[in-house]
Amino acid sequence: MYCIDLNSDLGESFGTYVLGRDEEVLSSITSANVACGFHAGDPQVMQRTVAAAKTKGVAVGAHPGHPDLQGFGRRTLGCTPQEAYAFCLYQIGALQAFCAPQGMELQHVKPHGALYNQGAVSPELAESMIRAVRDASAAQKTPLIFMGLAGSAYEKIAADLSVPFAAEAFADRAYTEEGTLVSRREPGAVLHDPEIISQRILEMITRGTVETITGKRISLKPSSICVHGDTPEAVEIAGTLRKNLEAQGIALKPLKEVLGL
Amino acid sequence: MYCIDLNSDLGESFGTYVLGRDEEVLSSITSANVACGFHAGDPQVMQRTVAAAKTKGVAVGAHPGHPDLQGFGRRTLGCTPQEAYAFCLYQIGALQAFCAPQGMELQHVKPHGALYNQGAVSPELAESMIRAVRDASAAQKTPLIFMGLAGSAYEKIAADLSVPFAAEAFADRAYTEEGTLVSRREPGAVLHDPEIISQRILEMITRGTVETITGKRISLKPSSICVHGDTPEAVEIAGTLRKNLEAQGIALKPLKEVLGL
Amino acid sequence: MYCIDLNSDLGESFGTYVLGRDEEVLSSITSANVACGFHAGDPQVMQRTVAAAKTKGVAVGAHPGHPDLQGFGRRTLGCTPQEAYAFCLYQIGALQAFCAPQGMELQHVKPHGALYNQGAVSPELAESMIRAVRDASAAQKTPLIFMGLAGSAYEKIAADLSVPFAAEAFADRAYTEEGTLVSRREPGAVLHDPEIISQRILEMITRGTVETITGKRISLKPSSICVHGDTPEAVEIAGTLRKNLEAQGIALKPLKEVLGL
Amino acid sequence: MYCIDLNSDLGESFGTYVLGRDEEVLSSITSANVACGFHAGDPQVMQRTVAAAKTKGVAVGAHPGHPDLQGFGRRTLGCTPQEAYAFCLYQIGALQAFCAPQGMELQHVKPHGALYNQGAVSPELAESMIRAVRDASAAQKTPLIFMGLAGSAYEKIAADLSVPFAAEAFADRAYTEEGTLVSRREPGAVLHDPEIISQRILEMITRGTVETITGKRISLKPSSICVHGDTPEAVEIAGTLRKNLEAQGIALKPLKEVLGL
Repeated sequence: MYCIDLNSDLGESFGTYVLGRDEEVLSSITSANVACGFHAGDPQVMQRTVAAAKTKGVAVGAHPGHPDLQGFGRRTLGCTPQEAYAFCLYQIGALQAFCAPQGMELQHVKPHGALYNQGAVSPELAESMIRAVRDASAAQKTPLIFMGLAGSAYEKIAADLSVPFAAEAFADRAYTEEGTLVSRREPGAVLHDPEIISQRILEMITRGTVETITGKRISLKPSSICVHGDTPEAVEIAGTLRKNLEAQGIALKPLKEVLGL
Repeated sequence: MYCIDLNSDLGESFGTYVLGRDEEVLSSITSANVACGFHAGDPQVMQRTVAAAKTKGVAVGAHPGHPDLQGFGRRTLGCTPQEAYAFCLYQIGALQAFCAPQGMELQHVKPHGALYNQGAVSPELAESMIRAVRDASAAQKTPLIFMGLAGSAYEKIAADLSVPFAAEAFADRAYTEEGTLVSRREPGAVLHDPEIISQRILEMITRGTVETITGKRISLKPSSICVHGDTPEAVEIAGTLRKNLEAQGIALKPLKEVLGL
Repeated sequence: MYCIDLNSDLGESFGTYVLGRDEEVLSSITSANVACGFHAGDPQVMQRTVAAAKTKGVAVGAHPGHPDLQGFGRRTLGCTPQEAYAFCLYQIGALQAFCAPQGMELQHVKPHGALYNQGAVSPELAESMIRAVRDASAAQKTPLIFMGLAGSAYEKIAADLSVPFAAEAFADRAYTEEGTLVSRREPGAVLHDPEIISQRILEMITRGTVETITGKRISLKPSSICVHGDTPEAVEIAGTLRKNLEAQGIALKPLKEVLGL
Repeated sequence: MYCIDLNSDLGESFGTYVLGRDEEVLSSITSANVACGFHAGDPQVMQRTVAAAKTKGVAVGAHPGHPDLQGFGRRTLGCTPQEAYAFCLYQIGALQAFCAPQGMELQHVKPHGALYNQGAVSPELAESMIRAVRDASAAQKTPLIFMGLAGSAYEKIAADLSVPFAAEAFADRAYTEEGTLVSRREPGAVLHDPEIISQRILEMITRGTVETITGKRISLKPSSICVHGDTPEAVEIAGTLRKNLEAQGIALKPLKEVLGL
């Protein structure tokens, strides 16, 4: 029987500022990537988000980002690998502190935005982040999983450092023949039809392939699918995807169960 | 045989900005209160400070403060108990993350500056901080100790919440008859002579008393003495105090040993 | 003929975070209090807000606040008068820079949130802020107006420093017999009915009185009425108030015209 | 008769953190580049720095940087030209506000660190910054001068936008044959001998040439020489350079006089 994890970025509100429809999307996903106060989120938002995830039975992961609230962590920041290591470890630890009193452990870490993208093309940065994940596991019973783009350089580095890796695919994005995401600036880069999206994800799960923007079929075998929760449309896509996958007999499970950890 | 802990605030540098003579003062103290990135410190400074403390055999505690780098955490901030709880838990967790990979656990938590002072006069704030300390202990084998002003309201609240409490006295400060610190604005509030300071601390340890600024003797029985490391004079005071205490047969030990935990 | 200014807090978005219905409320008001990047707002938001105000013919004022984005400037911050002076001058200057290229000058300054409230009870803080307003006028052809609570201590200090003062009343708030606002925690503190609000404001303008929460009538003669733009209800109140005032022959004009400057 | 401006970065302290020997270096320079609170500096530091410069008769310029205090503005930040425009205008305005009450006007703007370097290789970024300088001049009697690396792309863009440009050379740095600075990572990139530095600067001023690291002579005709004030050695270099230039009959004047504005 096939199984898959659905993940989404949560806890991105800050102080008075509200962002995202966390309560709604929590009903569709199995793993939450929780912002840790650098690019979004604040201590109270983190506390509430962990509690809400627990209530819905959703596994919690850290979503560390650059210290750039104004740019929402989407701006490239020329940090050193040593800085990236310390940024990640700091943010993971802060989130662990909100999990422990709830009897929970962090399940995974997925870098956010520019940090995610910079690490995908810089082995030094990638290694520093994955080392932070490995080192943060020292405070846990279960080792943390590193979540990154399926087919990216992260995978081998995680293997080298003996850190469990979860390949992620994006529900609403078109792929190039190289397996990378088509830039949002290109026509057709973002998909909107929940049924088409469901069909594509189903193919990834059951056959391990996806059709690229050029019409070719490439290998893509994700452990987790990223969905969004920032707009009503996104929440609807997530809900439809979950419903359709379940109708096809795909089991939706938190990442650690998908990976058998 | 008498024993005492010497503590000092460390890791207060930030980015390019260097503050304090951490390496020097580490040779005199037994417990370090490490800034956690809100009022001072940053992730790399925290990493380095934990590593330096380990090298010198100094126990590490968290020194959470208000999110006010510009004011160095010394300005009163009208935060709610819920905010104070979340601020403290976040910062403690962040520092725990740098300890675990070194095989270390946090020993204690001492709030910084305005947070320390606001909690001393607000039972709601004090309780929220001590609950954060209790909850952060969930991630540790050894429970965290809360360090606060000897004789303050913190002590009873800690007892009510079953959190170990360490009474702290200040090496270089004069005391009122009520056992509070004489305001820095008053003449005679700050002591400078290392020998006089040593005599006073010795009296606290061996007799459990101190002479107030008015010449009266009051009870004061600390588990830890706070020394400073931000000026050459402060470092000298710390060194002389340690030397004199050892010469009198007082054992200098980290807080957890002083408390027998 | 009677005239009045309607003011509202604008430009409170930050980076990705959107707050307030600025475009809508701009159609109802005559003066905008623009956040300056400390408690809300960022440089691009300020640029857009000044441009939008210009398009709608709305006068622009600075809305300086505490350096506390997380608390939205609503938390008391124990800053010195010297700090408050420098905070205000800095923020006013930053906003002036976005006005000058548009051929505009700042009309007024109204402190935000906790800064507004702290200044109302601390003559030293109030004086430091009003001095900042006076000193920022050095870069303008027209002197800046200081806007504060009608009947508050700000008024006399502004007069002593020869800074034009604009007394502000709140459209949706109940008043005590002392002329201060009833705390939001009290029942009846906030008014919701646009027609009742319109009647009260009309009375303030034409008779210079208002009915307090206890049913007594006190003097209250504002130059400006504060309306909100953060909810659909608030925007509706502002629109109805404007329509009703105009129907009664009250001229709606920017503050500097109301004060005859 | 030859004349030259000596500039240095000042006002880089922040809150409790002290950086630089501003008082000392002010005795040697003719123009100060004052940090504006994004990468360094805070409102009170700006106020003090402007006052100190006035006392010493040193002209004041803005030194805007990335919003990255932790990285001291030295980390590349992937901001858009629109963001860079707004960052610069905001910071320039904030500093203008501290000059006007002193009867001073800003003389120039020199971007800091990564912003300076990114603009030198991105015409879009450079143009956005120079437009900010032009637009900020709307609030002044005298137009602001843009200061940038001699021979860089900034010069032509400034000419196209009719913004006065000041070519800057670095006292303590070696040059490539292309007229760019030798990377600090290369041997010989940084010069330390005040006498050699003086000879090189004298050649730039009187002959308009400099010897490159490869021993070739290239054209370099600066209006201003950048010196540092962050170490005792740097302060000594600045003092020696000034003394030697004056002994050779070179007049030291603020930038606007060197450019004849």
